[in-house]
Amino acid sequence: MNDVHPATQRDGVTPMRWNGWGDPAKAKELPFAVRALLPVLLGRVPKPPAPVELADVRIADSALTDADLVAFRGALSADRVRTDAESRLRHAGGRSTPDLLRRRRQEQEAPDAVLLPTTHDEVAACLAMAVDLDLAVIPFSGGTSVVGALDPERGTHRAVLSLDLTRLSGLVRIDPVAGEAVLRAGTTGPEAERLLAEHGFELGHYPQSFRYATIGGFAAARSSGQNSAGFGRFETMVVGLRVVTPTGEIELGRSPGTAAGPDLMRLFLGSEGIFGVITEVRLRVHPLPEQRLFESWTFPSFEAGAEGLRLVTQQGGGATVLRLSDEAETSVSLAQIGKIGKAMAKGASAITVYEGANIEERRARVSALLREAGGTSTGESAAEEWLEGRFDGPYLRDSLLDAGVFCETLETATTWSNLHALRDAVTSALKEGFADAGAKSFIMCHVSHVYPTGASLYFTILAGVRGDQLAIWEGVKSRVNDAIIAADGTISHHHAVGRDHAPWLAEEIGETGVRIIAAVKRELDPTGILNPGAVIADPYASTRGS
Amino acid sequence: MNDVHPATQRDGVTPMRWNGWGDPAKAKELPFAVRALLPVLLGRVPKPPAPVELADVRIADSALTDADLVAFRGALSADRVRTDAESRLRHAGGRSTPDLLRRRRQEQEAPDAVLLPTTHDEVAACLAMAVDLDLAVIPFSGGTSVVGALDPERGTHRAVLSLDLTRLSGLVRIDPVAGEAVLRAGTTGPEAERLLAEHGFELGHYPQSFRYATIGGFAAARSSGQNSAGFGRFETMVVGLRVVTPTGEIELGRSPGTAAGPDLMRLFLGSEGIFGVITEVRLRVHPLPEQRLFESWTFPSFEAGAEGLRLVTQQGGGATVLRLSDEAETSVSLAQIGKIGKAMAKGASAITVYEGANIEERRARVSALLREAGGTSTGESAAEEWLEGRFDGPYLRDSLLDAGVFCETLETATTWSNLHALRDAVTSALKEGFADAGAKSFIMCHVSHVYPTGASLYFTILAGVRGDQLAIWEGVKSRVNDAIIAADGTISHHHAVGRDHAPWLAEEIGETGVRIIAAVKRELDPTGILNPGAVIADPYASTRGS
Repeated sequence: MNDVHPATQRDGVTPMRWNGWGDPAKAKELPFAVRALLPVLLGRVPKPPAPVELADVRIADSALTDADLVAFRGALSADRVRTDAESRLRHAGGRSTPDLLRRRRQEQEAPDAVLLPTTHDEVAACLAMAVDLDLAVIPFSGGTSVVGALDPERGTHRAVLSLDLTRLSGLVRIDPVAGEAVLRAGTTGPEAERLLAEHGFELGHYPQSFRYATIGGFAAARSSGQNSAGFGRFETMVVGLRVVTPTGEIELGRSPGTAAGPDLMRLFLGSEGIFGVITEVRLRVHPLPEQRLFESWTFPSFEAGAEGLRLVTQQGGGATVLRLSDEAETSVSLAQIGKIGKAMAKGASAITVYEGANIEERRARVSALLREAGGTSTGESAAEEWLEGRFDGPYLRDSLLDAGVFCETLETATTWSNLHALRDAVTSALKEGFADAGAKSFIMCHVSHVYPTGASLYFTILAGVRGDQLAIWEGVKSRVNDAIIAADGTISHHHAVGRDHAPWLAEEIGETGVRIIAAVKRELDPTGILNPGAVIADPYASTRGS
Repeated sequence: MNDVHPATQRDGVTPMRWNGWGDPAKAKELPFAVRALLPVLLGRVPKPPAPVELADVRIADSALTDADLVAFRGALSADRVRTDAESRLRHAGGRSTPDLLRRRRQEQEAPDAVLLPTTHDEVAACLAMAVDLDLAVIPFSGGTSVVGALDPERGTHRAVLSLDLTRLSGLVRIDPVAGEAVLRAGTTGPEAERLLAEHGFELGHYPQSFRYATIGGFAAARSSGQNSAGFGRFETMVVGLRVVTPTGEIELGRSPGTAAGPDLMRLFLGSEGIFGVITEVRLRVHPLPEQRLFESWTFPSFEAGAEGLRLVTQQGGGATVLRLSDEAETSVSLAQIGKIGKAMAKGASAITVYEGANIEERRARVSALLREAGGTSTGESAAEEWLEGRFDGPYLRDSLLDAGVFCETLETATTWSNLHALRDAVTSALKEGFADAGAKSFIMCHVSHVYPTGASLYFTILAGVRGDQLAIWEGVKSRVNDAIIAADGTISHHHAVGRDHAPWLAEEIGETGVRIIAAVKRELDPTGILNPGAVIADPYASTRGS
């Protein structure tokens, strides 16, 4: 199989494995220490059959007619309208564990074609044609969604297109005085940082999907990166947007601060392609940091560590990265990919990284507060190792799935005062859900995004599931989502809604909230071609208006 | 006239002058130095006739029927449904200069009745009855709008009600661990700070309207306060909202950070009562500062000072207040109310205030950057005097209007790179506008809100207008708004849109933006009873959808 397929090949970017995470050259066997640990934690699980090869997958023929193809090939060049099986399968979904389990099946669903526009105007032309021809459109960039936002769902339409935006990339302009840069939506994380670095600037947005995900995707999904303690969520970096909708274009973000009506930019941030396609994002950037400083910490308990993070965040902060693992995650050294399972550490470990100006001053302030909460510094190495391996977690999942071990992550957030109750509720729902399915599970948790009023909780789940992993997980996940809503957590802190979380978003924002999103959707996309079923289930049925 | 009228009297709050700013006891004659300066700046202007007395104003009879009144008196107690002339005139508009000029006329427009609900449920009942009875509703709290958001506009409805929310006040609950407090919408600035201080906390939102404006008004209008360098705009303090709309209620803000769809809270922040009535606001609060430190600065020019503010904001900041007056404002010492016109200072003066932790450290960092931009410290006194008089500017306006001098303010914002071009464009439009009307004008400007990518510009305008001040200002203001849009500024940084800025908001957000707001409006308020004409002119005509 030719992994460097033109459907995803771009300058200097090695495309992802079609059925797993990341660079195929980096895929590895499970480390010995992990293999030794798994039976202890989860019992023995049978090794599953080898994954299906791409060439052996069966998908339905494209539902597009020759006339459809002629129309799109007239607007884009012929090689940017693809209906071959590999192109379609590479756009068949995201990278959640359910997505990867589906990629192991012989029968799969895929979009009917992949379009590869290279300009804003080509995106507009694609949408206009899709409206005319009654075709659904799924905006697609890095393909790293873990919430079903990329499912090839055609809704009530004739067929479904994947609109691949990765050719729409690059730096449009930079304003070094204002510290603003305009990037095209399909620019990946590394490409953005390379282009900005040529001008001495950095964006500083490093989610785990960094190497593949794109600027437009970060915006559409309200991403949050590992440096959020220092630079904020992605939406706080966005100062302007350019969007094409099926019924008109819009440019937003005229001023760094404004009271000119509701903030419509915040409607498109988090809209996950249901209102329009983001084509350009104007971002706040900052000078490349001259210095970086690491420090690791240990706390007697997760509770003590969380108190330390709270003090730091409420009393002036200053760290660029603040990250706290619970006892379970600490015990297997999950935060240091290279060391996983080797050193059985006690307590709760934390990582701090400082970048930018006044580093020593900031470290002194943060360290004093962490010590006040019972923390002890453990030097630089663990934090450095975390940085080294921080984008590699998903490779480990592929190896676990190959070994028959179920592995997935999920996340939520709440106030500092509700943090432990929410963590307990999620952990219990997971453990009981798997136990009811006869599976042992091992649940780890960390805090990686902090706010003055609260923090996120990120869970990594291993389970010794026998039988249909997909079906069992669907039941457990539904139970966890119910538990999150009941315990006042958000259904997603940074993975977004997609199709997987849509029923729980409705509970989170209520009937009036759903009606608002549906009203905007019907106004901008009256025929409902954009990402049907994502964010809210049915915007054309759920409302009282008009 | 009984100024302590029950229509606006609340615990410990002295109601505003019905036809001017603030506490009637604080109204003063113009200081001698100002009286001496005015003819030099503006030429001599004739003293206008004395303002009309409230008892002499003529308003139309209330258009409400006895049946209407019986209905509302059934839901609220009888004394909280008012149709007397004083109650109606006290709710006839906001506090822009055009509002105050209208209050000087013998014939005035006023709402047909004033409703005074005391609970969330009473607000819901009022809206439900207004829908049933076909009555427009203008939400009203502090009455400090300067953009025509409170005009008694009935639109297509039978009559118009002022929904006075000031009885809906107080602290609902506080969470000292999360640093969150829930305040009812009608709580004034001083009341909020007093209630929070009892628990050792502060909100830290100090717009010039602080003494009268309310928490719900700050939210609805996307307010920004004088401490915004330290604590951010009001919308960044809001972590939750409770809203009643004509078709349902909504509670938003489940989590400190979330990727659960678009941020609907940001739709209500800045909605100025056109989507619903905010009844409760959950806010991020912080411990009361133990220390406060003042330092004043002088720069050779406004440009040098702006560069200093930019360096501070982009390189780590640390000041709670950052404020820079241009040469004109500096020359008359406008920033120090007690000194106005006395000390003719040179250059551009700036004020820094530091509150909270690590004050000396932060001052050292900020001071180094201000010096780098050419600033010289001038000690504490000017900054302390600014703090002393910072809410008193509008009193001076009343005295100027009494003396026949036209006085108004307006504001905008843009990026650091566009700041001086925008300031020049606004200043020219003002000067030329007044000159064309045969009036000399004196235009002052300051920066009081800074962001990493840009800053606000706040203009104070004095003009020696002869003839119809209201008509002449309408022409000048229209010209300035055109200039702001043409020069890439926002139509409002913190005064909001109201009716006065609505045509220019449409230019700022474009046709698609207007359609989005209209679609949400039609969904939540299908009969259009809420604040007709505010924010966008006609949500029921301007759209293509449904």
